[in-house]
Amino acid sequence: MEIGIIGGGAIGLLFAAYLSKKHDVTVYTRTKNQAHMLIQNGVIVEGQEPFQAKLSYATNSVKYQEKVLIISVKQYHLENLIPLIKSLTPRIIIFLQNGMSHIEKVKELSMHDVYLGVVEHGVMKINDHKICHSGIGRTIISSFNNKDLSYINNLNIHDPSFPIEFSENWYNILAKKLLANAVINPLTALFNVSNGSLVTNLHFYRLAEKLFQEVWEALNLQNKNEHWAYVKDICLKTANNKSSMLKDLQNGRKTEVDAILGYILLEAERKTLNAPTVEFLYQSIKGIEIEREEGE
Amino acid sequence: MEIGIIGGGAIGLLFAAYLSKKHDVTVYTRTKNQAHMLIQNGVIVEGQEPFQAKLSYATNSVKYQEKVLIISVKQYHLENLIPLIKSLTPRIIIFLQNGMSHIEKVKELSMHDVYLGVVEHGVMKINDHKICHSGIGRTIISSFNNKDLSYINNLNIHDPSFPIEFSENWYNILAKKLLANAVINPLTALFNVSNGSLVTNLHFYRLAEKLFQEVWEALNLQNKNEHWAYVKDICLKTANNKSSMLKDLQNGRKTEVDAILGYILLEAERKTLNAPTVEFLYQSIKGIEIEREEGE
Repeated sequence: MEIGIIGGGAIGLLFAAYLSKKHDVTVYTRTKNQAHMLIQNGVIVEGQEPFQAKLSYATNSVKYQEKVLIISVKQYHLENLIPLIKSLTPRIIIFLQNGMSHIEKVKELSMHDVYLGVVEHGVMKINDHKICHSGIGRTIISSFNNKDLSYINNLNIHDPSFPIEFSENWYNILAKKLLANAVINPLTALFNVSNGSLVTNLHFYRLAEKLFQEVWEALNLQNKNEHWAYVKDICLKTANNKSSMLKDLQNGRKTEVDAILGYILLEAERKTLNAPTVEFLYQSIKGIEIEREEGE
Repeated sequence: MEIGIIGGGAIGLLFAAYLSKKHDVTVYTRTKNQAHMLIQNGVIVEGQEPFQAKLSYATNSVKYQEKVLIISVKQYHLENLIPLIKSLTPRIIIFLQNGMSHIEKVKELSMHDVYLGVVEHGVMKINDHKICHSGIGRTIISSFNNKDLSYINNLNIHDPSFPIEFSENWYNILAKKLLANAVINPLTALFNVSNGSLVTNLHFYRLAEKLFQEVWEALNLQNKNEHWAYVKDICLKTANNKSSMLKDLQNGRKTEVDAILGYILLEAERKTLNAPTVEFLYQSIKGIEIEREEGE
């Protein structure tokens, strides 16, 4: 398959590295500098052989040619990208964003076969061409407009370090991931603690429980106990990891709070639910972002 | 007057320093070490002459002899002190604690003339015998059991740097101070910002407003706009100051969150009011205290 990956972040590079084992991959980066770095060095996954062979790069001023496009930019960069994607000839578009605030935008793309994916890998960007694949997880992909999964199935490279699974119900897989992100990210970012503290610190645990309850209701999910067990399990399995939102704050980057808690707030409002914990955390992270900017 | 001051913290030393200009003051410290330091060096207020003359010191194993006792220990040290005070011959007892969780305990002391005070000074303890009087404010004292204020009036030393005022209504003066503390302390401690950020950072301002609303209702106060203006005014006037709770957390000390938000939570519960922001902040500060202890 010819695959274009739009976005040279940690997830984009992870997909570029593994998918290039079997496919022809082009990475579209936001900066020329990163494109040059990638052309010179290839994508390097720490501790593994460089993935050089079938990579080619282009900045996003070039037209996307590939029949399959994987969108791995941050939520807040989608705004500018959607009109561009709209103007393309029909093809397969796979969105890998966190949160669910891209759902509304994705509805405008009915000319394409749209797929939504969640990525459970632990991956850290070390520099513009180097990542650390710190936790092996799964990618789960689901059709947004009820398309057959047989063609997209060819994406799978059958590498145990990079399994790709397919699911019938995009809402459930995205909501489940969002639920975990919405509980773990803001609390760990606010308290500047690694994920494990949410289960080992009694007071943080109580806050996580309260937040979970509000998010779970806003997302209108079933199986409450099962979902809560899932969130706690992630906290335990990634006990020493820093969440992406904590890392974003520590590095003075914009967080994905709008895509995560912003979306939950809108859903709660739509369902006339009270979500004071979500509201508090949303304002907190926004406020800390501002303090960090001013501190620079 | 012979005055005993129980507690050698910042407030205790401030009172010892100024009151010794006119009165015979004995400071009762918790540690022998501090008593020795004070005997050797006197109380030093930075930038001023040392106040040596009429100070004498004793650890709290010695019986309190003075007719007037000023209690300036932290809220959480009152527990052990109250039975001791109960056993004393009738006299004047002045409590200077933050918050209002001492009110219930103070009710047991009807054998004494009990007074409650709030201290608006900015004062920082530099070491066991040295303080920095960073902000000149007032002390306001009120009778808890409707006693005449004429005798206690003699406390006043008529120093413009240390004015003492008297008020008829103890509830109003304590509640007003508590309201300001309950809004400013936990938010600045959580976000690790100085007081001014609560009015300059739009998101923190929104949280402060929400928290104010809950605390104001729980305390059953009047004149909402006036009280909100008072809180904002403190934030502006002390814009570059760190709140005591923030300093406590930074120095790995126990905070006064129980006396401040713990009391508000009980009041909200008693009045069957919802106070999700207070609850969130209470658990947050308790959780951070634990993280700090473990980090030591």
